[in-house]
Amino acid sequence: MAVGNVAVPETIYPIEGIKLSATAAGVRYKDRDDLVVIEIATDAATAVVTTKNAFCAAPVRVLREHFAKASPRYLVTNTGNANAGTGADGKRRAIDICAALAAKAGVNNNTVLPFSTGVIGEPLNSEAIIAGLDNALANLAPDNWLAAANGIRTTDTIPKLTSKKVNVAGSHYHITGMSKGSGMIRPNMATMLGYVATDANIAADLLQEMLSAINEQSFNRITVDGDTSTNDCCVLIATGAASSDIIDSPEHPHYQPLFDALAEVFIRLAQLIVRDGEGATKFMTVKVTGGKTTQECCDVAYAVAHSPLVKTAFFASDANWGRILAAVGYAGVEDLDTEQVDVYLDEVMICQNGGVAPTYTEEAGKTVMSRPEITIHIDLARGEAIDTVYTCDLSYDYVKINADYRS
Amino acid sequence: MAVGNVAVPETIYPIEGIKLSATAAGVRYKDRDDLVVIEIATDAATAVVTTKNAFCAAPVRVLREHFAKASPRYLVTNTGNANAGTGADGKRRAIDICAALAAKAGVNNNTVLPFSTGVIGEPLNSEAIIAGLDNALANLAPDNWLAAANGIRTTDTIPKLTSKKVNVAGSHYHITGMSKGSGMIRPNMATMLGYVATDANIAADLLQEMLSAINEQSFNRITVDGDTSTNDCCVLIATGAASSDIIDSPEHPHYQPLFDALAEVFIRLAQLIVRDGEGATKFMTVKVTGGKTTQECCDVAYAVAHSPLVKTAFFASDANWGRILAAVGYAGVEDLDTEQVDVYLDEVMICQNGGVAPTYTEEAGKTVMSRPEITIHIDLARGEAIDTVYTCDLSYDYVKINADYRS
Repeated sequence: MAVGNVAVPETIYPIEGIKLSATAAGVRYKDRDDLVVIEIATDAATAVVTTKNAFCAAPVRVLREHFAKASPRYLVTNTGNANAGTGADGKRRAIDICAALAAKAGVNNNTVLPFSTGVIGEPLNSEAIIAGLDNALANLAPDNWLAAANGIRTTDTIPKLTSKKVNVAGSHYHITGMSKGSGMIRPNMATMLGYVATDANIAADLLQEMLSAINEQSFNRITVDGDTSTNDCCVLIATGAASSDIIDSPEHPHYQPLFDALAEVFIRLAQLIVRDGEGATKFMTVKVTGGKTTQECCDVAYAVAHSPLVKTAFFASDANWGRILAAVGYAGVEDLDTEQVDVYLDEVMICQNGGVAPTYTEEAGKTVMSRPEITIHIDLARGEAIDTVYTCDLSYDYVKINADYRS
Repeated sequence: MAVGNVAVPETIYPIEGIKLSATAAGVRYKDRDDLVVIEIATDAATAVVTTKNAFCAAPVRVLREHFAKASPRYLVTNTGNANAGTGADGKRRAIDICAALAAKAGVNNNTVLPFSTGVIGEPLNSEAIIAGLDNALANLAPDNWLAAANGIRTTDTIPKLTSKKVNVAGSHYHITGMSKGSGMIRPNMATMLGYVATDANIAADLLQEMLSAINEQSFNRITVDGDTSTNDCCVLIATGAASSDIIDSPEHPHYQPLFDALAEVFIRLAQLIVRDGEGATKFMTVKVTGGKTTQECCDVAYAVAHSPLVKTAFFASDANWGRILAAVGYAGVEDLDTEQVDVYLDEVMICQNGGVAPTYTEEAGKTVMSRPEITIHIDLARGEAIDTVYTCDLSYDYVKINADYRS
């Protein structure tokens, strides 16, 4: 059961310059959509970030090579098989798929980027995917975002989709995005994918910088169990259809409002992954303030968000401040004065100056811990830096899902 | 249920110059031993290492101050209450206990070191401990190691004790040690303590160096869930009773044999903690070879040992090589050539050159995974460095124990 508000928005704005299709190619299962193709108009700008895992999958390697040579026109994603741990044969199959799509669409091979998600270590049925391309291309349409969001699901229990309209000084921009991943947690099911498109007109170099910065606030700030996938990829496309006035520097008056709107979309898509985390019963925001640097805030937030003791305490609705303080203590912050540290759960102060808060009561702790969404706010009281990480609790079901997965 | 061989040795050698007692002071429960005092002969050398957690407990702060000023004569340990998160009052209580013991024994306050383990955040009943000191001192005897090992237990399901005799070129040395901790995993129950004594004659400075080095191979190489306690302490005492010939440099002919014997004792005591890890059903040795540096081997070993996906796979007896490779991939090793990486489970090669080994069969995987003790050997094939970490699997019971603990 996903936690909290995970609803698909009532209005999903198509993005001019983007067409999508979701079709059934029979990669692993029959009669379910497992092939998603996204067509990008000529002249759109596209930015990409990929997994830092050294064991990256074959499609990620091919994607990096292609993206270095050309601006993408087609993104082709299959589910059911991650094409990871498959060696030279896996890479050849990823290239074959791109070449087949390029030939059918009449574009250069390098303008096609491959994505795969599913089981690791089995040969990808690239023949089935290639055989399904005609159907996929024939079904391309601008209003297929929901079908595509469903088509990229593997163990996800919900489609992850968001869409918004931004008005900036008389210009109307649209942003629509989708993600998949049931936590950054299942290298075996080859995890996190994100695709976001806007009709804003943004220069490619600037778009890449924006994606890197926004990714740091969103997909790089979520954790279910700290495991990083071999296949993570995130794409941001700006088609430019909404305006001929190109945004090519942070000084452009439209830059900041668009950045903020894009960040909001990415954070929503990232949070949806945590809300759908394996076995999750609680959604936790770990906000660290008062740090000397953003990095130390991030380190503290991740120490708390990764601590199995903290996560099991939240599963048990136990306001266990000792476990939170202990995690703060081993986060590696230099010269931390523990007697300055305050901790809040939502509005309830549980620790003050490194010990239990005098105003804290077990009853107040119980009330806040009964909520499905809780913010853990840790104030280090030694500077102005802030950082935030999103995570979920650790439940019996997490162990069950991951212990039973292959058995 | 602790995993594998956790038996107390048949012969427990007393160490000349060391007396111990375990008595019931009623710190938290009635009629169970909760106060352990160790008396150290004058002229013994003592080395200490303490937790790196910034939120260290009151007794750890007092211990550091006392140890900086004098060579210890008494170690006083209580269970039932960690005296952590207790502020200035907690520190005063730790000092009071030391002062009371010092007065009764006729020694300087600074020669008494306090240790506490138990719940966090509650005031320590130092009055009960002080009232119990006469009884504790009256019961001091050299052959109380097993009683003491039982006396320092909290949630430990077994006493953790080892003892050995070392013959070096005609000299006979004895080493006996005990530890407590049911994983490095329960800041709330304030975790790992280790006390080892030998009758070897070792200079204090050298002894401290030896303890630091040996600690890196033993207590600093175990993990149950990556959480580091607020109260961890480890003590190594050399009474010198066995020989008047002092070992004061690594060039001394007795140094290396003694170092190796001490390391063996520490590794045994550290492994006993993992074998008794909360909910553990499997004991795993993660051995990384072929690294450029020991640090990168350690990073890879910990990435694998901490991965909840790897740990749940072992709980399920699933030879899931994809999860192991993914953890190796995100360990942060620079320029790792994944196509050189081999992985073995005991004698079975599961991965070769970064993919599934051609000789691997599911049946061989099942056979090895059915064992309660398994070595995961990862060969990075890029250098000569080696490191080893010990861990256990992640089971339903881990979640149950930690989710139910305060409820």
